[in-house]
Amino acid sequence: MQDEPLNLAFALEHAARFHGHVEIVTRQVDDGKIHRYTYADSLRRTKKLANALRKLDVQVGDRIATMAWNTFRHFEAWYAIAGQGAICHTVNPRLFEQQIEFIINHAEDSILFLDAQFVPMLEQLQEKLPSIKHYIVLTDEAHMPTTTLPKTVAYETLIQDEPDEFDWPTFPEETPSSLCYTSGTTGNPKGVIYTHRSNFLHSYAINCKDVIGLAATDTVLKVVPMFHANSWGFAYACPMVGSKLVLPGSQLDGESLYELLDEEQVTISAAVPTVWNMLLAHLSDSDRQLPYLQEVFVGGSAVPRRVVESFDNEYEVTVVHAWGMTEMSPIGTICRLKPFMKQFDYQRQVDIRLKQGTPVFGVAMKIVDDDGNELPRDGLAVGRLLVKGPWIVKRYYKEPDNAVDDGSWFDTGDIATIDEYGYMQITDRAKDLIKSGGEWISSVDLENAAMGHPQVALAAVIGKFHPKWEERPLLVVKPIDNSTVSASELFDYLTDKVAKWWLPDDIAFVDDIPLTATGKISKVQLREQFHDYELPEARVSS
Amino acid sequence: MQDEPLNLAFALEHAARFHGHVEIVTRQVDDGKIHRYTYADSLRRTKKLANALRKLDVQVGDRIATMAWNTFRHFEAWYAIAGQGAICHTVNPRLFEQQIEFIINHAEDSILFLDAQFVPMLEQLQEKLPSIKHYIVLTDEAHMPTTTLPKTVAYETLIQDEPDEFDWPTFPEETPSSLCYTSGTTGNPKGVIYTHRSNFLHSYAINCKDVIGLAATDTVLKVVPMFHANSWGFAYACPMVGSKLVLPGSQLDGESLYELLDEEQVTISAAVPTVWNMLLAHLSDSDRQLPYLQEVFVGGSAVPRRVVESFDNEYEVTVVHAWGMTEMSPIGTICRLKPFMKQFDYQRQVDIRLKQGTPVFGVAMKIVDDDGNELPRDGLAVGRLLVKGPWIVKRYYKEPDNAVDDGSWFDTGDIATIDEYGYMQITDRAKDLIKSGGEWISSVDLENAAMGHPQVALAAVIGKFHPKWEERPLLVVKPIDNSTVSASELFDYLTDKVAKWWLPDDIAFVDDIPLTATGKISKVQLREQFHDYELPEARVSS
Repeated sequence: MQDEPLNLAFALEHAARFHGHVEIVTRQVDDGKIHRYTYADSLRRTKKLANALRKLDVQVGDRIATMAWNTFRHFEAWYAIAGQGAICHTVNPRLFEQQIEFIINHAEDSILFLDAQFVPMLEQLQEKLPSIKHYIVLTDEAHMPTTTLPKTVAYETLIQDEPDEFDWPTFPEETPSSLCYTSGTTGNPKGVIYTHRSNFLHSYAINCKDVIGLAATDTVLKVVPMFHANSWGFAYACPMVGSKLVLPGSQLDGESLYELLDEEQVTISAAVPTVWNMLLAHLSDSDRQLPYLQEVFVGGSAVPRRVVESFDNEYEVTVVHAWGMTEMSPIGTICRLKPFMKQFDYQRQVDIRLKQGTPVFGVAMKIVDDDGNELPRDGLAVGRLLVKGPWIVKRYYKEPDNAVDDGSWFDTGDIATIDEYGYMQITDRAKDLIKSGGEWISSVDLENAAMGHPQVALAAVIGKFHPKWEERPLLVVKPIDNSTVSASELFDYLTDKVAKWWLPDDIAFVDDIPLTATGKISKVQLREQFHDYELPEARVSS
Repeated sequence: MQDEPLNLAFALEHAARFHGHVEIVTRQVDDGKIHRYTYADSLRRTKKLANALRKLDVQVGDRIATMAWNTFRHFEAWYAIAGQGAICHTVNPRLFEQQIEFIINHAEDSILFLDAQFVPMLEQLQEKLPSIKHYIVLTDEAHMPTTTLPKTVAYETLIQDEPDEFDWPTFPEETPSSLCYTSGTTGNPKGVIYTHRSNFLHSYAINCKDVIGLAATDTVLKVVPMFHANSWGFAYACPMVGSKLVLPGSQLDGESLYELLDEEQVTISAAVPTVWNMLLAHLSDSDRQLPYLQEVFVGGSAVPRRVVESFDNEYEVTVVHAWGMTEMSPIGTICRLKPFMKQFDYQRQVDIRLKQGTPVFGVAMKIVDDDGNELPRDGLAVGRLLVKGPWIVKRYYKEPDNAVDDGSWFDTGDIATIDEYGYMQITDRAKDLIKSGGEWISSVDLENAAMGHPQVALAAVIGKFHPKWEERPLLVVKPIDNSTVSASELFDYLTDKVAKWWLPDDIAFVDDIPLTATGKISKVQLREQFHDYELPEARVSS
């Protein structure tokens, strides 16, 4: 068999050659206007950029950062960087400035591509970023901001005189292609290095019909940002099969997304639950429908039941739950019903669809007890979730030690069950379990139960000291606007939904619940916020 | 990223673990009875066989032959052999005995798995097969034939006392997994070695939604034999995603296949056109429908238009045309319509669906002129079809020279066009073109045109000497039973379907047209048969 190493540039080459007329549509961040061109155009411009980067002395293995929304220029940068063997380091602009400073210095990025709106932030930071030699603003001369950043050039100016021919060099397929830091709820962010090989395999795996299953007949609105968890692999998966690609730029509000979904006749989209909540609110307010959309993929955090039901019943759109981690490229499981489950009643089907799902082929998965013994796949046994596979991290960037055990298993930090049909369900983050009198209470289950109440916008559970039980749950609730819900009403509501001894010892109502940079509930900040809070029982005894 | 080498045994391990209750259904060759068990059962028995093979001193790289129909035991043998690093050499029992002798000796197979029906043939051959140390008959003691073959054991006896635990060894993923000889219309058959890596990538690629796209919701009737062209990759693709697998044994007639399609509620199937012709005839005779079947994949030779139309209009089943070669693992292209083509009228859609299609991601493809210059993708330029990719042959087994050029391109021996949307259409085998007065006539186009006549069962075109034009086409026709069609009627029929100068110089009616072992028209034998035939013009001049 032929043994030419896999290179991600093949994906764009393939699209340009065999799906060359298919469009990439972008809502530009400069002015909100729609830009459209084809995969064939994209490849030509990507090669111009590849030539420009070579002139800037980019070498195999160099780290080149991007801090940008989903646009055609950002897409070109991914391919021009990785295609020549450099490493595309996608920096999440929503991180705190100290984190951004840390990861750029840790990665020693030599060039930073950035959207114009991030120029002020970088002007603040740039003295602390000695490795960066060039700033490339993803815009044209007309939209170029004046800036105090040194060695700054507009993207269009950089590439305009370059030739549109470029021979992708040959290098081993284990060569790193990209780098993404986990937002890290504790300690410094850690870097995950993806390779051409791992991205190739992951892209194939997610394009299997049973996983994401993109096709040339699809128009894909890629809401999931290109700076988030390898962009769920969509930046490779779309050109691989010639899907039309719609990039929403920075406008992720319900109305802007609806406009793209409708005007571009989008069939598939992917985003975190927050985005879908905003879209549903907009649709409901404006009394609009989604005649083209078929499937939306949701990941990043558990999907609320009402999102699934609302899409099903009001819009005839299927919500598919996916689970993964930055460390897993990121997709590990997908939740689709097996044939015999189609006969179950609707609520039972939704119960299953809210699980994390079955592993994508290539991902091995098991749950273990504290001694590392594998637990049965019976839907009852609860254990630490371990994974392995060719697109799962082995060692964090620049770390001396492997992140996997001797058997190559990576500990996800999640606590889960696996049932007899292979469906995995996360019951908690290991560090978020609440230990009450020697027994575990799942904060996730309790949160999900509370989220089921129509007047609860967001719910979070943390453990607090209890003189008798050691730790007991405190439920923190952000009610919806103009809510009238009371603590006693919520207690009543929860009574038949969780075990009696799981009922929270107290409920605190707040205006807002802190989120991490990637939109998840920040238990770290929440614990900080409730640091001095005492449960009623604790108050009595203290 | 983790770097454990890919091993095909992962596919069966994955199926057993996460789709363990899904069935493999076999029509047994012993007695025609249905056997059913699950992927979990299959893995246990495969491991018993793996232990048995180890006891027979099988080493990494050893060639182990199979000569067998599609059954659960054959399936187990594939995984037990390749999973421990040996090479599963699938021998096509339809080959001529001399070819079987040649390839077994060429491969130096040490063990032969065979169905009981092939025992007599092997008794004839065995003295000429010195490398074979053990014959394993794929049956149980009750169905074991008496035989003069030395060292022969029934499969069930071999594995019965073995443990069902086996740790798949680790070896580089470039290790060969399987071997398949091309039937070779000229010269000796040539061996194509597949590797764990190439099969892994090919399986992912064909499970993409736009290619074959198998899913856990599918029941797959794998008609394409496991001894034919790597079984089109289905033996790996099904367990990868947990499809229910139906194996038809040796009974490939219309009624037997219909029974399985109906009783097992098959959704997807794959076979050569001959099989579908037989099924359509059976359905029509017996007035039956196909309520469960959704898609049938057809490859191996061009699909007749009436097969596509009949499935569409009478049975609501979509025929999807795939193209490939044993040298390509085998799938290279798939023919599915792009979104804008759905607006075309039905006949124009069928015109496109009869093309070979667009390349599967991973396969690069171009057409070149006689000097190797790439020709435009405009649907008009006709050139030699070259391919490359990670599941395409580099060098035939034990051959000293590469089968590819310096740029890693493999010459398919086909003549093709590629249109602006990437659809490739084979116009001829290079060696089957007819050169008439310096211009090429496509025998394939002429055959397809003749096949469109309702009374033509099979048509073949060969070039014959012509005193003026050097070569002119002779059309050989096998009419349907009780046909009344005449040569002049066929000439009239063809007049508005091909260029005037393409019209055959003569039409010969025959009872049968010789086929190769894999069911394709054997132009070699046909030329032999018409060796002494002279065209009318040649007769006059001679």
